[in-house]
Amino acid sequence: MSVIKVAILGFGTVGEGFYRTIQSHAEELKAVLGKKVEVAAILIKNKQKERDISSDVLVTTEFEDILNLPQLDVVVEAIVDKDPTYIYLRKAIERGSHIITANKEMFAHYGQELLELAKTHHVSVGYEATVAGGIPVIQTLRQLLNVNRVQQVQGILNGTSNFILTEMREKKLSFTEALRAAQENGYAEADPTNDVEGFDAFYKAMILSRLAFSEEPNWDAVERTGITSITSELIETAGRLGLRFKHIASIKKFGKQLKVSVEPVLVGNEHPLYHVEGVQNAVNISSDIVGQITLQGPGAGMFPTASAVIEDLVYVCQNRPDSEGFQSTSDTIASPEEGQHEENWLITGFKHATNDVIKMIDHIEDGTWIAKAKKEEMKELSRQNLGVVYFPIIGEYEGRHILTRLA
Amino acid sequence: MSVIKVAILGFGTVGEGFYRTIQSHAEELKAVLGKKVEVAAILIKNKQKERDISSDVLVTTEFEDILNLPQLDVVVEAIVDKDPTYIYLRKAIERGSHIITANKEMFAHYGQELLELAKTHHVSVGYEATVAGGIPVIQTLRQLLNVNRVQQVQGILNGTSNFILTEMREKKLSFTEALRAAQENGYAEADPTNDVEGFDAFYKAMILSRLAFSEEPNWDAVERTGITSITSELIETAGRLGLRFKHIASIKKFGKQLKVSVEPVLVGNEHPLYHVEGVQNAVNISSDIVGQITLQGPGAGMFPTASAVIEDLVYVCQNRPDSEGFQSTSDTIASPEEGQHEENWLITGFKHATNDVIKMIDHIEDGTWIAKAKKEEMKELSRQNLGVVYFPIIGEYEGRHILTRLA
Repeated sequence: MSVIKVAILGFGTVGEGFYRTIQSHAEELKAVLGKKVEVAAILIKNKQKERDISSDVLVTTEFEDILNLPQLDVVVEAIVDKDPTYIYLRKAIERGSHIITANKEMFAHYGQELLELAKTHHVSVGYEATVAGGIPVIQTLRQLLNVNRVQQVQGILNGTSNFILTEMREKKLSFTEALRAAQENGYAEADPTNDVEGFDAFYKAMILSRLAFSEEPNWDAVERTGITSITSELIETAGRLGLRFKHIASIKKFGKQLKVSVEPVLVGNEHPLYHVEGVQNAVNISSDIVGQITLQGPGAGMFPTASAVIEDLVYVCQNRPDSEGFQSTSDTIASPEEGQHEENWLITGFKHATNDVIKMIDHIEDGTWIAKAKKEEMKELSRQNLGVVYFPIIGEYEGRHILTRLA
Repeated sequence: MSVIKVAILGFGTVGEGFYRTIQSHAEELKAVLGKKVEVAAILIKNKQKERDISSDVLVTTEFEDILNLPQLDVVVEAIVDKDPTYIYLRKAIERGSHIITANKEMFAHYGQELLELAKTHHVSVGYEATVAGGIPVIQTLRQLLNVNRVQQVQGILNGTSNFILTEMREKKLSFTEALRAAQENGYAEADPTNDVEGFDAFYKAMILSRLAFSEEPNWDAVERTGITSITSELIETAGRLGLRFKHIASIKKFGKQLKVSVEPVLVGNEHPLYHVEGVQNAVNISSDIVGQITLQGPGAGMFPTASAVIEDLVYVCQNRPDSEGFQSTSDTIASPEEGQHEENWLITGFKHATNDVIKMIDHIEDGTWIAKAKKEEMKELSRQNLGVVYFPIIGEYEGRHILTRLA
């Protein structure tokens, strides 16, 4: 085989970006892989649409045409829906092709099945592009996991939500105004639910959880809260306390208990995620030997994502398939903390002077407090007091020190 | 061969950290490599010193003893000096052992020779630990370079200097006081020249230059300036302009011209290196497909560095030696900028109201200006005006906008 034959499923942003990059960087790819990479076929939905595709590429609406190609080394999947995509990829693996996907929803649902099937058929699976676009998160985690035991992964995994929160703070916009700006800039869909309600970040968190801890939590048990409840007033209050709202996916293990959340969090100035602004993504990995590493970069976009797909292309072509599969971290070490540990919280809408549930440590303004409490206690407080809203604070909270400055 | 036999040269912080980690993470390593890793011998200087080393490890002051071991798969070098270390590593390669080094000075001087020799002898060279400790910079660059054409690498590569600059700003210390604090915390040597004059960062920059651009500049042509001339007053002035001093190694290519500098730079708030504080290191990589990626983490320390060495251990044991060697980026693309482009500069000690060399764009205070000029023009200005000191500004400079706020 002197040529690597690739089929692309889907010709949207990611599919087209990959196709163009294969052409513009043909020399580099050939140098690395020792073979020419050729796009043999592209699966599209609508035959009528004009596309700038070379005439020697088979452009088809039928997946069967692709399966029937005489040579098919790699299938690159850049479709949005999870079905029937999953079936396509099963068939590609059964045919003996490596697969690469940029489809987080599909991979969160069917990743494990695909990896196991690929193992049986001695082919590889690349999924770098499913999480954080061009930032090499999957590869870095995979490498760290060679020896490190990962303790926690925290990430800003959705550029749209981060853009909205940044716009709200910097330009003092309401959520609706900032969402409109995101839509006008092409960062948000007409229906933004997937991004602003945290589904997109949730899928990515599930993929990271599988990789870092070899398991996923029960999906129903994951706290997934979007950013739609964040008001300009809340952002203003946070700002006065030196804190910023970030929408953070957190995956960590306390002893045997895996804990995953996707929610708005208040982040202090010294935390590496505090400074991640606009459509940028970032991932902070804590592991036992190396300590904390943060990776930051473009989380989406045609070329950053294409770069991730091409790194996967090199990976699947060079990797020995038998080493493929989610890594198994023998035993993640028990964290000294307990699941029921105390954290700092920002509370709004609490009008009373006292309560017998939690310990308030700062009074910011009418109805707004900082408390030190366990999550269960916060839930109890909110059950007893309608209208109470609360957010966890990560990074150090400087407490009275700031209040004094404010006063 | 059912066991991988390793020798460690040097039992300081890095050597000992590696030795301990091999023991504490034996299971993980065996799972990844499919073989047990055994430390066969350790080269030390002083036989009298007490060390906690298992009695079945050969502890010797003679490198010949190590070369004569019946089996020697990997030599891990964690010595400080470049000679005779280089000779040891040549001999190890000639014997057929993979080598791993954490020694930046040695590798900056002899890296190319060692990589070529290793190629001849079909063994691999790991040097992740030479740059930015536990941050996987080498591996990430190597991976990006599979397809991306790197345009620029900018990094905070010396934790000691960064700690000093952070202390000076946060605690309003003089350079001397901050240096003392670094020494008391074990971050600086009794003779801090290597760190504060930028030699350490310079060696790391040379290693990055080789990897990213397959070449090094003429060492004498590199502008290497340390941080000893940064005063509290300069830091104070920078702070009022929303800028921070960072000691930055920059490696970039304009067309065919490779440009490397290691110097104090003023960094704006929106730049990813602005927020890197204390002993942290960070590297910002700009490349053509993926755009900008930043990696941040611990740049030194026993375990972060040990983690890098162990990642190299996995790398050299799994890598096919023929693919070893610095990558060749066929042609780095010509940057639209020219070597002679205008930048923003902070100037102090310029007492005149006018000059005919450069364009001042802001007057900050008596003798302190912001100018827009080419580097050559700045040099000319300083030749004509003794006492003038200037620093480049990276990231956007907000100009009059800030002045108005100050006024």
